[in-house]
Amino acid sequence: MADDKSMLEEQIKSQGALVRKLKEEKADADQISEEVKKLLSLKSQLGIDPKPQKVKGNSEKSKENKKPSGEDGPKKFVLKTAKGTRDFAPDQMAIREGVFNKIISCFKRHGAVTIDTPVFELKETLTGKYGEDSKLIYDLADQGGELLSLRYDLTVPFARYLAMNKVSNIKRYHIAKVYRRDNPAMNRGRFREFYQCDFDIAGQYDPMLPDVECIKIVVEILSSLDIGDFVVKVNHRKLLDGVFAACGVPNHKFRPICSAVDKLDKTPWPEVRKEMVEEKGLDPSTADKIWEYVQLSGGTELLGKLLQDESLTSQKRAVEGLEDIKLLLQYCEAYGISNRVSFTMSLARGLDYYTGVIYEAVFTGAQTAVAASSDEEGSVGVGSIAGGGRYDELVGMFDGKGRKVPCVGISVGIERLFSIMEAKAYESGQKVRTTETEVYVIAAQKGMVEERLKLCKALWDADIKTEQSYKKNTKMLTEFQYCEQTGIPVAIIIGQSEIETGIVKLKVMSSREEREVKRCDMLEEIRQVLASESSVESKPSISS
Amino acid sequence: MADDKSMLEEQIKSQGALVRKLKEEKADADQISEEVKKLLSLKSQLGIDPKPQKVKGNSEKSKENKKPSGEDGPKKFVLKTAKGTRDFAPDQMAIREGVFNKIISCFKRHGAVTIDTPVFELKETLTGKYGEDSKLIYDLADQGGELLSLRYDLTVPFARYLAMNKVSNIKRYHIAKVYRRDNPAMNRGRFREFYQCDFDIAGQYDPMLPDVECIKIVVEILSSLDIGDFVVKVNHRKLLDGVFAACGVPNHKFRPICSAVDKLDKTPWPEVRKEMVEEKGLDPSTADKIWEYVQLSGGTELLGKLLQDESLTSQKRAVEGLEDIKLLLQYCEAYGISNRVSFTMSLARGLDYYTGVIYEAVFTGAQTAVAASSDEEGSVGVGSIAGGGRYDELVGMFDGKGRKVPCVGISVGIERLFSIMEAKAYESGQKVRTTETEVYVIAAQKGMVEERLKLCKALWDADIKTEQSYKKNTKMLTEFQYCEQTGIPVAIIIGQSEIETGIVKLKVMSSREEREVKRCDMLEEIRQVLASESSVESKPSISS
Repeated sequence: MADDKSMLEEQIKSQGALVRKLKEEKADADQISEEVKKLLSLKSQLGIDPKPQKVKGNSEKSKENKKPSGEDGPKKFVLKTAKGTRDFAPDQMAIREGVFNKIISCFKRHGAVTIDTPVFELKETLTGKYGEDSKLIYDLADQGGELLSLRYDLTVPFARYLAMNKVSNIKRYHIAKVYRRDNPAMNRGRFREFYQCDFDIAGQYDPMLPDVECIKIVVEILSSLDIGDFVVKVNHRKLLDGVFAACGVPNHKFRPICSAVDKLDKTPWPEVRKEMVEEKGLDPSTADKIWEYVQLSGGTELLGKLLQDESLTSQKRAVEGLEDIKLLLQYCEAYGISNRVSFTMSLARGLDYYTGVIYEAVFTGAQTAVAASSDEEGSVGVGSIAGGGRYDELVGMFDGKGRKVPCVGISVGIERLFSIMEAKAYESGQKVRTTETEVYVIAAQKGMVEERLKLCKALWDADIKTEQSYKKNTKMLTEFQYCEQTGIPVAIIIGQSEIETGIVKLKVMSSREEREVKRCDMLEEIRQVLASESSVESKPSISS
Repeated sequence: MADDKSMLEEQIKSQGALVRKLKEEKADADQISEEVKKLLSLKSQLGIDPKPQKVKGNSEKSKENKKPSGEDGPKKFVLKTAKGTRDFAPDQMAIREGVFNKIISCFKRHGAVTIDTPVFELKETLTGKYGEDSKLIYDLADQGGELLSLRYDLTVPFARYLAMNKVSNIKRYHIAKVYRRDNPAMNRGRFREFYQCDFDIAGQYDPMLPDVECIKIVVEILSSLDIGDFVVKVNHRKLLDGVFAACGVPNHKFRPICSAVDKLDKTPWPEVRKEMVEEKGLDPSTADKIWEYVQLSGGTELLGKLLQDESLTSQKRAVEGLEDIKLLLQYCEAYGISNRVSFTMSLARGLDYYTGVIYEAVFTGAQTAVAASSDEEGSVGVGSIAGGGRYDELVGMFDGKGRKVPCVGISVGIERLFSIMEAKAYESGQKVRTTETEVYVIAAQKGMVEERLKLCKALWDADIKTEQSYKKNTKMLTEFQYCEQTGIPVAIIIGQSEIETGIVKLKVMSSREEREVKRCDMLEEIRQVLASESSVESKPSISS
């Protein structure tokens, strides 16, 4: 697997070569400046994240006001974004919008509503929900008034919302940024500010019907983005508890042992075993019994086998878990997604609040370089791209009377999807359009600025996406070049003679065909050209 | 003008009556629960903001962990959102989405790109940009590492972005939340967390061409939302400076006197004069001279008058300002928006960084109750709904070499637009659809759950927005009621006999017409019904 840092250095080298080449060729200034921008952005990625650390969730102690490399000269102050955060440039935004649109249309197809909650919550709302990871929560300074923290995920605010507004059933999605003081690995798509994209179904319903829809949604989203093969691993917290009980783990060690099992997708068994025995004081033979179970994965045949395992079926929780999984797999069959689902007994998920089915979508087989290289350890694991599960107790933690609202949901790893789609776009070499401009208005002579304004007004009033220069007098050649570079399909040209005869010139940029059009027919003619251009061409923009 | 608190109390009273009535009538449980939710939300508005304070920008000192009223019973902890923040429920989100869509489509019509920046910046990035208002900035706690603050607006991060990425021209919009530790007046649409919606044009261009497009955009947006009459006031910082100089204000008092003038839209002249003379040490005769100028407003005729005022034309800055305004009004004429623009010499705008044209859109004449009552003082001012101006020096403050990027932009007061659109929706009495679901799948008998799943799969695969119950067995009557309540236009019903004969029943909810359709024709028939339903009905949802 490729070393990310050297990949980045490679990219910087080739981007530098491109810039030099463009400068030698005296290419268009805008184009050069754009490529220089990309180069600077690559350099700053390398600079901002100089030493990726392996320790996960390590709280930072040292002051870090390093200047990013690639910046020089005297500065009044450090010009950078906060550690672990980034700006999104227009081309990245266009890709992001494209990903959002696909995901949101899937949620809407399933009849979900959306809600929004504030970016910060009372500190006590988040207390006691994240176990060890609580140290990664950003607190706001005490400036008098309430003690506040930035949200760590969207699930706890959702549960708070349900309890506070006494909502007992809802199917909602929420796409918003969350905040974690983690060690960023930005070139691998791990940030301190990042989007989460959650879909949850709350309500007292029949077993596995909401649960299976979450899997269906993950399958629809990942299929629609066409980013390589994947599988959704499923398991059940009650089954895990049953396994632990059957193997002889004492009750109070269930959660720590569950955390250890969670590491199996990235850490080899001997290390995990060591953690169980040495750190968590488990009997070695108990650990080995657990290992016998958590290696197993499969489908209905595995279920059958487990349902005949007497030490397991003597545990009530194990049986309940197995019954749920059985029904879930049956419903997956009806949804035609069985080939995407794998019952995987090592799946544990980190968070404490899961109480039933848990899932995690991971890449398998062929995929883009970014997808393949984005796993931190880069040896055992494959990249996780979505995850979730059932949490029936969380809302009750917020309710004064402990009234429960059962919930199940999934969270799509949308930042990784952005990275992958970005890499795909750059690999394809196709230019990403950052605007949707359809018409560019050009004057043939000097002193036409007010005529141009009137023309733009007419086009905007007709809801045609239109731009013009902010220069009073322009060169036609430069204007045409701008249209070509930015992919604007139609130019409208006016000069004194056109105004006198009540016409405009319409130029179709793809064919360079130019014709005269009566001013009264202009809108109709433009619409026809736009319709035929968009049907002939493959869509130029990823976001459209 | 109505007292907001008593308006809210009135709303709570009538909402309470509605809930009681529904309960008496034994109305549908979902409907009751929805109305109860609204009642709770109204009550919490009253509770969270018990004493609207008149002092603006007053930094809070007291601890405020009051329980919101309308909450009772034992609590593990206070169940509320942070002071000055709120959740958005699905119906509010649908309205918000509708407003966003209109605004974004206007920006795209003008060829704007979009960018995104992090929610927090290095503290020093914000330092020295906001004058007196800096005390309203939220700081993050010092947890080791960089000192950070939540963004106070989108303009400073935009300038930082331009300088850091060496972008010398861009036309971008940015819609995102900003944070101010202000005294919230939530029932008037003033929050501590709120959206800003900015459009800016950066680049070295010819005078007034980017500036006039900002006004055009404000006019397009406010017209498209149909929320009452408005006018865009324009003025010029150089003209104000020229006026101050002509009246004898010493140079170092320009900014404080400008701040005082800024209050004239809400405060009567005698009070402003007092501030100028007593607080800011201005000669009373100088203040009175300023008053002669700042009362003036009009159009080209006023310009002509001022251009003949010798004490003014002896000031270079005044002449530069007047020339700009003259050109701006000329371009407004070409854009057909002169009737919407008023040259208003009392317009000053609070922020320090403006260097040229400034503008502010305000309501005039007839408007909704919310729009009318939302001004805090409720006596002099009319509501401001958008504002902005030219700031040619801000980017240079971030650049090591002081390289300047001239900028001009507007910020649309989108939170007020939400409030107004929400009030309009509730006044109209029309139910806001929160989903776009087109088809609901219903089983005619028990034991059909897997058949329903298969049917849903077929519909989702055909990109038809479909829902079904998460109950294993359902009652048809309840299912039809759900369709009616939520505005789902089509129900598809299957039973054992339908499956055996390869058909489904299709029910058009608006006409209650029910017919049998072959399974192979189902998708086509549904599409036809949906097309005719959406063309016959007025669109049920504001967001669509």
